[in-house]
Amino acid sequence: MPVEFMLEHEDRHTGARAGVLKTDHGDVPTPAFMPVGTQGAVKAMIPPLVEESGAAMILSNTYHLTLRPGPEDVRALGGLHRFMGWEGPILTDSGGFQVFSLASLSTVGDDGVRFQSHIDGSELFLGPERAVEIQEMLGSDVMMVLDECVPYPCERDRAERAMERTIDWAGRSLDARTADRGLFGIVQGSTYPELRRKCAETLAQMPFDGYAIGGVSVGEGPLLMDEVVAHTAPRLPRDKPRYLMGVGPPGDMLRAIGRGVDQFDCVMPTRNARGACAFTWQGKVRLRNARHARSVRPIDDGCQCRACRTVSRGTLRHLFQAGEMAAAIWVTLHNLTFYQDLMRCARQAILEDNFQEFKADTLGRMGE
Amino acid sequence: MPVEFMLEHEDRHTGARAGVLKTDHGDVPTPAFMPVGTQGAVKAMIPPLVEESGAAMILSNTYHLTLRPGPEDVRALGGLHRFMGWEGPILTDSGGFQVFSLASLSTVGDDGVRFQSHIDGSELFLGPERAVEIQEMLGSDVMMVLDECVPYPCERDRAERAMERTIDWAGRSLDARTADRGLFGIVQGSTYPELRRKCAETLAQMPFDGYAIGGVSVGEGPLLMDEVVAHTAPRLPRDKPRYLMGVGPPGDMLRAIGRGVDQFDCVMPTRNARGACAFTWQGKVRLRNARHARSVRPIDDGCQCRACRTVSRGTLRHLFQAGEMAAAIWVTLHNLTFYQDLMRCARQAILEDNFQEFKADTLGRMGE
Repeated sequence: MPVEFMLEHEDRHTGARAGVLKTDHGDVPTPAFMPVGTQGAVKAMIPPLVEESGAAMILSNTYHLTLRPGPEDVRALGGLHRFMGWEGPILTDSGGFQVFSLASLSTVGDDGVRFQSHIDGSELFLGPERAVEIQEMLGSDVMMVLDECVPYPCERDRAERAMERTIDWAGRSLDARTADRGLFGIVQGSTYPELRRKCAETLAQMPFDGYAIGGVSVGEGPLLMDEVVAHTAPRLPRDKPRYLMGVGPPGDMLRAIGRGVDQFDCVMPTRNARGACAFTWQGKVRLRNARHARSVRPIDDGCQCRACRTVSRGTLRHLFQAGEMAAAIWVTLHNLTFYQDLMRCARQAILEDNFQEFKADTLGRMGE
Repeated sequence: MPVEFMLEHEDRHTGARAGVLKTDHGDVPTPAFMPVGTQGAVKAMIPPLVEESGAAMILSNTYHLTLRPGPEDVRALGGLHRFMGWEGPILTDSGGFQVFSLASLSTVGDDGVRFQSHIDGSELFLGPERAVEIQEMLGSDVMMVLDECVPYPCERDRAERAMERTIDWAGRSLDARTADRGLFGIVQGSTYPELRRKCAETLAQMPFDGYAIGGVSVGEGPLLMDEVVAHTAPRLPRDKPRYLMGVGPPGDMLRAIGRGVDQFDCVMPTRNARGACAFTWQGKVRLRNARHARSVRPIDDGCQCRACRTVSRGTLRHLFQAGEMAAAIWVTLHNLTFYQDLMRCARQAILEDNFQEFKADTLGRMGE
């Protein structure tokens, strides 16, 4: 098996699960949050700091790396792990989401998508086979199938066609795989329960190493997202990891864990950090706020990350005001550590059959 | 003694010296290079990475910290060491150089300088007593006197008046000191040998803990700078550290060490890093150059820094092209490490009475 999932424990009172995703580059305890390294780097970080945050696995983007520097260059530079300087597991997104959200003039057909690079306007083509080929060139531990992503809201007919095409491409992706790498299918179907069900049940029959729920966090809001997840997750194979793509805020993640989701990725901890917004167990802290000017408190009193052990809110406010990169580095390190701590605590609660209470307590404290 | 200098060895064939500057926050082996943390942070770094580079002492700027966040805020946040998250020794520039170069509408009189903040245009005053008072509030290990800096070229009369005023302010700075902190005098006098001599010999009679050569690296070029340094350094007390301010390129530093200089600071390793220019023992490497696109070589084959152990030139080129902060972080870490390695090797050569050969070899290899 290219990657293997060991289901360790199911919470007695919710759908939450604790497990381990085993890969050639190391084990990933789940629930797991994967920091996003879009262009081959987690923003405002270097890999040793990402590791220090406690992250076991990171995500990178096929779309961005295909445009620049190109998969041939990544391969020539030793493959994605050496290229990024990250020795742990890496999951790569297929590029589907980015083609539909970032590229201009994308035209989708049964064979794939034609689109123009958002960097230089060059014309490119991405089909399910090519997406797998590129990801094999990159050398990712877990590859994602190319899927057709629809915006929200989306008419039922369009959502159904995209879902059917996603299923078709899923099968072609499995056929295209030549390397001993993990491959995850992606459930689409917008917010239509019957489309989600059909997609989940069809993909569940295919020999994927894991299953993602895609097409969420596109504007439907936390309640509809929770409905989609609650409806979809239980229809995916119990012995395979479940990955909710592009999510998200701590509250959304905790709710999804309760529905049986095992993996997440999101730019929120890194992007918010650069915008001077820190995550804490007491909710968000806006570090540019003038009330922090003389605060000797760390970002989060209970946090053991190096940012919290080294600099005060007052210093961080100053560094943001002064435009110093150190501000982004420190708060990114903190936010990523917070996300990892959240996952670790959730996992512990699951192992103790206490996830429901942990979730309620945590959401209450955070004001989510 | 607030700070103490132990002269360990003088090279047999040149003016080069090896010593140790002892402070309350730790020892600094000399020759020493101090990375610049202008606004309370070394750019693109956090203090643990600065420490990893091997730096023992850093420099911060009174001018910038006075404007933002203000010395009262720095004191309220625990003083400069806690504020920056740096537990090692810190030298603070007095603000003289910045007032004359960055501030607008500066008017100098015998009492000090009136100027407008380059940030918000507010009117401020800095005199020798106030400069010491602010630096004591910051809590620096080594304070610098306020000096009057002149541009290059500068008429003799103006240079002489500024030099005389610098001497006057030097005495007032010593009188103003109330805390058990180091205080260095600064030799001015532009490129006029007799002015430099008079300033050096006058200051040498005053009980400073160290002596800086200021007013260099302002456009006079490496040859004139070397003349000024060769003429000035030997006139400073043998048992006190000598600090060449704002220098510099590796070649200028090695030449100055040969003239008996012990300390340096410069934005070059950090600024060049952000501009994709790396220092190596074989000279500068421009990392945006297309020829590095598929290079698996580290920045410098002989370097043991974490950047060189982790990422290739190809990856760094990509990260610069993609605008990722990781590029600046990695290359800053490397450049600072290179500067420290250069100082360490110079020190070793001095201890072995081999500095002349080391300097010639190194400059030759670097093409300087």
